[in-house]
Amino acid sequence: MHTEFADLSLLVNPRSVVVVGASDRADSVGGRTLANLLDVSGFSGGVYLVNRTRETIRGMPCYKTIADLPDAPDLAIVAVPAEAVLEVLEDAADKGVKFAICFTSGFSETGSDGQRAEAKMREIARRSGMRIYGPNCPGLNNINSRLGFTFSPAFKLDLNPGPIGLATQGGGLGRSFLQAMERGLGVGLWASGGNEADLEVSDFIYYMAEAPDIKVIATLIEGFRDGEKFIRAIQHAARNGKPVVALKVGKSDYGVKAAQSHTAAIAGSADINRAVLRQLGVIEVDDVDELIDTSALLARRLPTGDDKLAVYCSSGGAAALAADMIGDAGLELATFSAETIASLKKLLPDYANIENPVDTTTSILTDPEVVDKTLQVVVDDPGVSLVLYPTPLEYGLVTLQGAESAIRVQAKTEKVILPVWMSDRLGDGYKAWVRAGMMPARVLGKAVKAARRWVEYGVWRKTYDPAYEPLLLRQNYALQVSSVPYAMRTLSEFDAKALLCRHGLPVLRSGLARCREEAIALANDMGYPVVAKIASADITHKSDVGGVAIGLQDASAVSDAWDRIMSSVRDVRPGAAIDGLLLEQMAKSGGIEVLVGVHRDDVFGPMITFGLGGIYVEVLKDVARRLLPLNRIQAQQMIREIRSYSLLEGIRAQQPADVDALVDLLLRVSDFVSEAPDIQEVELNPVWVGPQGQGAIPLDAVIIKRVEIMNEETKRSEIWQ
Amino acid sequence: MHTEFADLSLLVNPRSVVVVGASDRADSVGGRTLANLLDVSGFSGGVYLVNRTRETIRGMPCYKTIADLPDAPDLAIVAVPAEAVLEVLEDAADKGVKFAICFTSGFSETGSDGQRAEAKMREIARRSGMRIYGPNCPGLNNINSRLGFTFSPAFKLDLNPGPIGLATQGGGLGRSFLQAMERGLGVGLWASGGNEADLEVSDFIYYMAEAPDIKVIATLIEGFRDGEKFIRAIQHAARNGKPVVALKVGKSDYGVKAAQSHTAAIAGSADINRAVLRQLGVIEVDDVDELIDTSALLARRLPTGDDKLAVYCSSGGAAALAADMIGDAGLELATFSAETIASLKKLLPDYANIENPVDTTTSILTDPEVVDKTLQVVVDDPGVSLVLYPTPLEYGLVTLQGAESAIRVQAKTEKVILPVWMSDRLGDGYKAWVRAGMMPARVLGKAVKAARRWVEYGVWRKTYDPAYEPLLLRQNYALQVSSVPYAMRTLSEFDAKALLCRHGLPVLRSGLARCREEAIALANDMGYPVVAKIASADITHKSDVGGVAIGLQDASAVSDAWDRIMSSVRDVRPGAAIDGLLLEQMAKSGGIEVLVGVHRDDVFGPMITFGLGGIYVEVLKDVARRLLPLNRIQAQQMIREIRSYSLLEGIRAQQPADVDALVDLLLRVSDFVSEAPDIQEVELNPVWVGPQGQGAIPLDAVIIKRVEIMNEETKRSEIWQ
Repeated sequence: MHTEFADLSLLVNPRSVVVVGASDRADSVGGRTLANLLDVSGFSGGVYLVNRTRETIRGMPCYKTIADLPDAPDLAIVAVPAEAVLEVLEDAADKGVKFAICFTSGFSETGSDGQRAEAKMREIARRSGMRIYGPNCPGLNNINSRLGFTFSPAFKLDLNPGPIGLATQGGGLGRSFLQAMERGLGVGLWASGGNEADLEVSDFIYYMAEAPDIKVIATLIEGFRDGEKFIRAIQHAARNGKPVVALKVGKSDYGVKAAQSHTAAIAGSADINRAVLRQLGVIEVDDVDELIDTSALLARRLPTGDDKLAVYCSSGGAAALAADMIGDAGLELATFSAETIASLKKLLPDYANIENPVDTTTSILTDPEVVDKTLQVVVDDPGVSLVLYPTPLEYGLVTLQGAESAIRVQAKTEKVILPVWMSDRLGDGYKAWVRAGMMPARVLGKAVKAARRWVEYGVWRKTYDPAYEPLLLRQNYALQVSSVPYAMRTLSEFDAKALLCRHGLPVLRSGLARCREEAIALANDMGYPVVAKIASADITHKSDVGGVAIGLQDASAVSDAWDRIMSSVRDVRPGAAIDGLLLEQMAKSGGIEVLVGVHRDDVFGPMITFGLGGIYVEVLKDVARRLLPLNRIQAQQMIREIRSYSLLEGIRAQQPADVDALVDLLLRVSDFVSEAPDIQEVELNPVWVGPQGQGAIPLDAVIIKRVEIMNEETKRSEIWQ
Repeated sequence: MHTEFADLSLLVNPRSVVVVGASDRADSVGGRTLANLLDVSGFSGGVYLVNRTRETIRGMPCYKTIADLPDAPDLAIVAVPAEAVLEVLEDAADKGVKFAICFTSGFSETGSDGQRAEAKMREIARRSGMRIYGPNCPGLNNINSRLGFTFSPAFKLDLNPGPIGLATQGGGLGRSFLQAMERGLGVGLWASGGNEADLEVSDFIYYMAEAPDIKVIATLIEGFRDGEKFIRAIQHAARNGKPVVALKVGKSDYGVKAAQSHTAAIAGSADINRAVLRQLGVIEVDDVDELIDTSALLARRLPTGDDKLAVYCSSGGAAALAADMIGDAGLELATFSAETIASLKKLLPDYANIENPVDTTTSILTDPEVVDKTLQVVVDDPGVSLVLYPTPLEYGLVTLQGAESAIRVQAKTEKVILPVWMSDRLGDGYKAWVRAGMMPARVLGKAVKAARRWVEYGVWRKTYDPAYEPLLLRQNYALQVSSVPYAMRTLSEFDAKALLCRHGLPVLRSGLARCREEAIALANDMGYPVVAKIASADITHKSDVGGVAIGLQDASAVSDAWDRIMSSVRDVRPGAAIDGLLLEQMAKSGGIEVLVGVHRDDVFGPMITFGLGGIYVEVLKDVARRLLPLNRIQAQQMIREIRSYSLLEGIRAQQPADVDALVDLLLRVSDFVSEAPDIQEVELNPVWVGPQGQGAIPLDAVIIKRVEIMNEETKRSEIWQ
């Protein structure tokens, strides 16, 4: 698989094209493809036709094979039966064709024979440098150049150019998106690579991140083939200031089952995916309409990171409902300035609501200029950056005039007026919004959701730090290329803590005492309270033999514990070889227990998980996740992100916890795992977090290392380094 | 305010009508009202016109006032300026008119003058028996009888009759609902009572609960004027087997602000409202489109309570997305029988997904009969009761044939096929669904939400117990009619526990010991461990003076505690009058702490709250609520409803908690408050819940009683009964 991004310019805008399997039968794939290219597209480059049996088609000469062409076109469109595809691709690659689009289905989606055929396609691509798009795909739509390399009879119907780039795997939902462009915006480029034998969604996200005609990237993903590549494509878009909006299909077990039978992609784990997308600034949405609404809003204007909303409406019920939803979404309604309120008071009836949300009431029925005047006042308020304008019902001239007024106001401002046409009756007002390119949302709550995501993206961009990301990639990459045989080994608690200690993590002190006097000296040295445990390789379950004493507060308690433990162990297990007592510091009381873990995700690499300990993780699944490495801001954010964060802030007159120490701990864990690619898993659980100034200390630690397998002789020393 | 429900038949279907303020000017309220009545409605009853200045209108004679009419019509439609409304209503009442509809605005929504005018309207209604609808309302639409008592020019456009009853307060969102009926169903009756000076939403819910042409009641509520009445109306619908779907506007602070400036209703607290609606089986939705989709689905067929879904689709992406959403919603996809799978295997290509969700793949492009055959197989599966049929894109003849096939299958089955037309392009397939009355949903996630609510309503009906409800009403009612002056008194912990004990609630034993010997005897009698606290009316903060000892394990510990406490208290507070030591049993360790509280909601009456103690309530707001009284099923349900319920089930090898005892405790609290209307608030926090078989015991109790104020002499004895 290619790990670098190729330049796709000559795929999207080829200078010449060969259609293999060209036909003049209108109902055939080859015929429809040719019609789209010659009749619908505005393609001015060279077109070659390949057909084994025909001399000419539409008066154009046909070649028997690609090999016969006078020169190598940039793009081969392959519209032949499955059994002929590989040969055509070989021919194209040999000829020096740069890109091939293969519509044909019957490959990996049908089973292992198809998977093998796709592996051969990848081999052809790697060998020749010819990149392959498909198979089992509806083709490529470069709408901004009016180019359709597709057999779809719908191509000619969906030719609204625009600033949105759309990269999907399946075709149906992608075209659903295109059809929504009837609402006033457009998709400039739609890539839908089907089985993605070679080129995949990430390649097109990367391309769109550079394409000057694309402002927003919308993507519909059934599975991640290559997490590394996806991350790099997303980061490229982020560096170029282009938002990426994503709908991930196949989140639940049910969805995964359906997605796998549809493509061969890895569906991934929903909460991992969600955390990764969030960290990368990808705006994840939950439905196709949300993908459309959110992309359209971002295409109209990017948020500043400090955005507040206004609601402007002539229905009190809709205004109140919108305000409810804005409150529920955690968004802020702008507080109007005194000037705004004074102006609205002058312009609207006494019983109108002149604070935010604004309800003009039925004054719009009697005064056709009221929207021009009062919406302008709202837009001019310095605190407002987005105005939600819900229209609950079609009301003929009244709703038309309202729309026309708002369109006039929009023409004079950089701020966004977001219309919501809530009625099924698409009247003249609706059509006016569409003509103005204002892309009315159709569901009130979905418009609010789009606004929330728009605002959140602005906030994300404010803390976005491009300098920080390359580390993440090297880290993931190092893992994927290792090919030495390896095994997983779990370190003992003692060894795990020793390893943490060597990497600068705080651990409670511990030591082995071989006699009573040494025990007292050790305890005095480490400070009280301490825990004492029998140290014997023969005894696993220490408490069962009376081998543990906790909360020892002074030297005499340690001395007593020595006697008690030794006597009990000797009684119960007379034959055991005893090394002495293991002494450990005890955490002070009054702290909060949290969990810090790291695992390596198969798709995205090392990921850190943080949450409060015990039931918060087990029952409430209240955790935050990030890919490693962390920077300080991310560490702070992930701590604040959990629902039970207020426990760390200190509720009910309790002292706030030492969050600074916890941030340091997360960063040290991040460094530790980043520097040691052999660390496969870390679980610090519990981590004791004391009151402010008292630190954060792992009380227990499980570490799983990946060790290369050489021979039995060297293995043991490898494990324990 | 009327507390009984009047028969509204003659408002909805009057035999005769007078239009006061009739006009023949097409753009006036009186003119449009008359046009709707005479030109659009199919009204065959008598029509009178009242106009002060005109002799005739449209050739019909005009009367100067209602008093001049030859007889009293059933309904007066009042379309006169605000200042003339009260006089007209007086006239109508005096004449013996049964109902008046008043469109005019400028009443309570404008301030206190308007509120006073509405109080007068209520007075007129009470005195005369004439019921008033409005003011500030768009009128009444009895679409099943083609009757519009409304000035709205949109009346003639929204005449789709059907099985849905719609009761709203504001008008805009109501008409939004009506316009959605273009999708294939209809609203039989739309009541929108505006300021609701007299008749309110509840009156219409009650009416619709009886109306034979209404199957489902949809309501849009900005505030509850009379919780008692609302509950009775809802219960009437439940007894008659009619689901009620509700959108409550004004949930957040923002929304409340907007709703209050719109009508004068009490917006209520969102979580209280939600709990009440849920308990009553009202299906609460979050947006107007959800109100429409859910009502429409219920109007098509009622759920059985044991419903499972199938997804049938020709787009793998849409199938996977639908499956995701079904999983996220906690719904179950039916597991197909072996016969179903065998039949689908025969009928669909190898690479199609023949398990649920079904993805026919593009076989629909080539085989026009595939949907007829395979959808029939899915519908015939015994485990399936609802089939979701998403169409992600308009695809001409293909999507039309798919719809037509599904409509044929629907015609032969009682099960529901729920189409989702996801595209903005409304093609012939969409129109076919609409014509078939199958009311396609427009957003995939919203269709799944509607299906979830449909399934949940079925489950609710299974445990619905009409016999249980009247108590609830008497309870609420008793409070509202009390007019004696009263005050609130908080009982001491000791008195509160004594009161609980008298009502059969378990409490830890306690007693006052006046000497050391009595302390030991008491402790021996109640069992160890015990707590000892100084008993002195002069000492409030007992711990501050060394006046508390916990965890006393035997007689000698009690004896020591006596000495220690007495000596400490005498040192610190030498002048305090000491009654002795208060001894109390201590809860055993190993239990879980929960909270049980009761308060009386201003709108709905006494409500019980349950949750785990401490941070689960404070931080996570993880509580369940019910109106009192509870039955056993409800008590069990509310315990299981909290997110942290698994803690009670016993996680991490802990013993399960004594949930049975907790259920008993909830029922006893319910009985206690139900039997004692003077109990205003109860908070048992914490309640100790032991492992199975060990009980559930309140450790602390706060009880606030409402006491009638008579005179200072009798007050004290009243408080302590």
